[in-house]
Amino acid sequence: MVDLTQVAENEAFMAFASYATIILSKMMFMSTATAFQRLTKKVFVNPEDCAHFGKGENAKKYLRTDDRVERVRRAHLNDLENIVPFLGIGLLYSLSGPDVSTALLHFRLFVGSRIYHTIAYLTPLPQPNRALAFFVGYGVTFSMAYNLLKNRLYL
Amino acid sequence: MVDLTQVAENEAFMAFASYATIILSKMMFMSTATAFQRLTKKVFVNPEDCAHFGKGENAKKYLRTDDRVERVRRAHLNDLENIVPFLGIGLLYSLSGPDVSTALLHFRLFVGSRIYHTIAYLTPLPQPNRALAFFVGYGVTFSMAYNLLKNRLYL
Amino acid sequence: MVDLTQVAENEAFMAFASYATIILSKMMFMSTATAFQRLTKKVFVNPEDCAHFGKGENAKKYLRTDDRVERVRRAHLNDLENIVPFLGIGLLYSLSGPDVSTALLHFRLFVGSRIYHTIAYLTPLPQPNRALAFFVGYGVTFSMAYNLLKNRLYL
Repeated sequence: MVDLTQVAENEAFMAFASYATIILSKMMFMSTATAFQRLTKKVFVNPEDCAHFGKGENAKKYLRTDDRVERVRRAHLNDLENIVPFLGIGLLYSLSGPDVSTALLHFRLFVGSRIYHTIAYLTPLPQPNRALAFFVGYGVTFSMAYNLLKNRLYL
Repeated sequence: MVDLTQVAENEAFMAFASYATIILSKMMFMSTATAFQRLTKKVFVNPEDCAHFGKGENAKKYLRTDDRVERVRRAHLNDLENIVPFLGIGLLYSLSGPDVSTALLHFRLFVGSRIYHTIAYLTPLPQPNRALAFFVGYGVTFSMAYNLLKNRLYL
Repeated sequence: MVDLTQVAENEAFMAFASYATIILSKMMFMSTATAFQRLTKKVFVNPEDCAHFGKGENAKKYLRTDDRVERVRRAHLNDLENIVPFLGIGLLYSLSGPDVSTALLHFRLFVGSRIYHTIAYLTPLPQPNRALAFFVGYGVTFSMAYNLLKNRLYL
């Protein structure tokens, strides 16, 4: 067995595990938010999803798009585009022996900025709220990537 | 060198590696499914993709959308939205020293539910087949996240 | 603490970390490319994004789609669909004790093919440039998955 007490004592990795789990759970709530919007607004994309509300021509009227649903889906896709690099780069960064307080600063800023991004997208708040939230998360990820490549490039 | 026999003896991690590889390979088949539908139905989104079938105005008629192609793409995106959290949370969970048989149950349920989800989406099967498949995978991932955060939160 | 000198001496893992960071950074540039196209072409999808350019009806004319913007977004989504399996499978593969030069060949081919894919998509180059780039990356990922499952399947 791997000596798991070793991993459990690596604070940067433990912090990464906690923050990654939190932000992934938040991202998963976007699926429920989309489903909730679709059901309350009766806006569907698959004929089998609205079979319950009527048959044939009667059901077809629910096959439509809706601004509100599309907004949630865009926020979800933006999450995916930004959380995937954070997961990959953050995992490697947390294993590269960073200073723990610097690592915590990175993880906290990222998670905070992504939560604010979702709030700014779904409310919606006027720009540049969403743009700023996006660039904070983006900058944090690049900062970790820069640290990784500076210290331990192996090509 | 890391003593890889150590990692190879961590059964929960080995199980995660196997199931993650299987479900990622399944997800990759969605790309080929989209390409196959596009080529057999001659439904393209980029002008350069159908240059082979005709020049100028003659080629433009292939730049269209098709229900069948969009269905495969939606199934693919849904995979991505759900497999990314499974990868992140599952990796951390498998390293957190879970009971091996509990971990195996989680991984098997997730992989089974995602394969069933794809079948239900592409056939398509009537609801609530797809919804149930989705929620099984969703619940499994949250269960792992809950275990992680309960035992080893480090914020 | 985990003995990080151990990880740092695992050459296959270090190589994976470097290539994964590079390809994720490339993927992140796609977000900026989309934002750049949206701002220079004044093509927006959210009303709050173009509030700056005019009020009410005057702003609505910027809520439109544009071929160029959609092309960048498709390239970004294709990246996501292919880089996620590479991250998951590549990480597990790099920890499975592969021959270092074989591993390097896989990582280099993948990163090279994805960069070429983006160039082929955005220029755009005539087919089959993009299709070939796609299939090289796809084949590399399957080759790693095959190696993983052949040697250490645990179900």
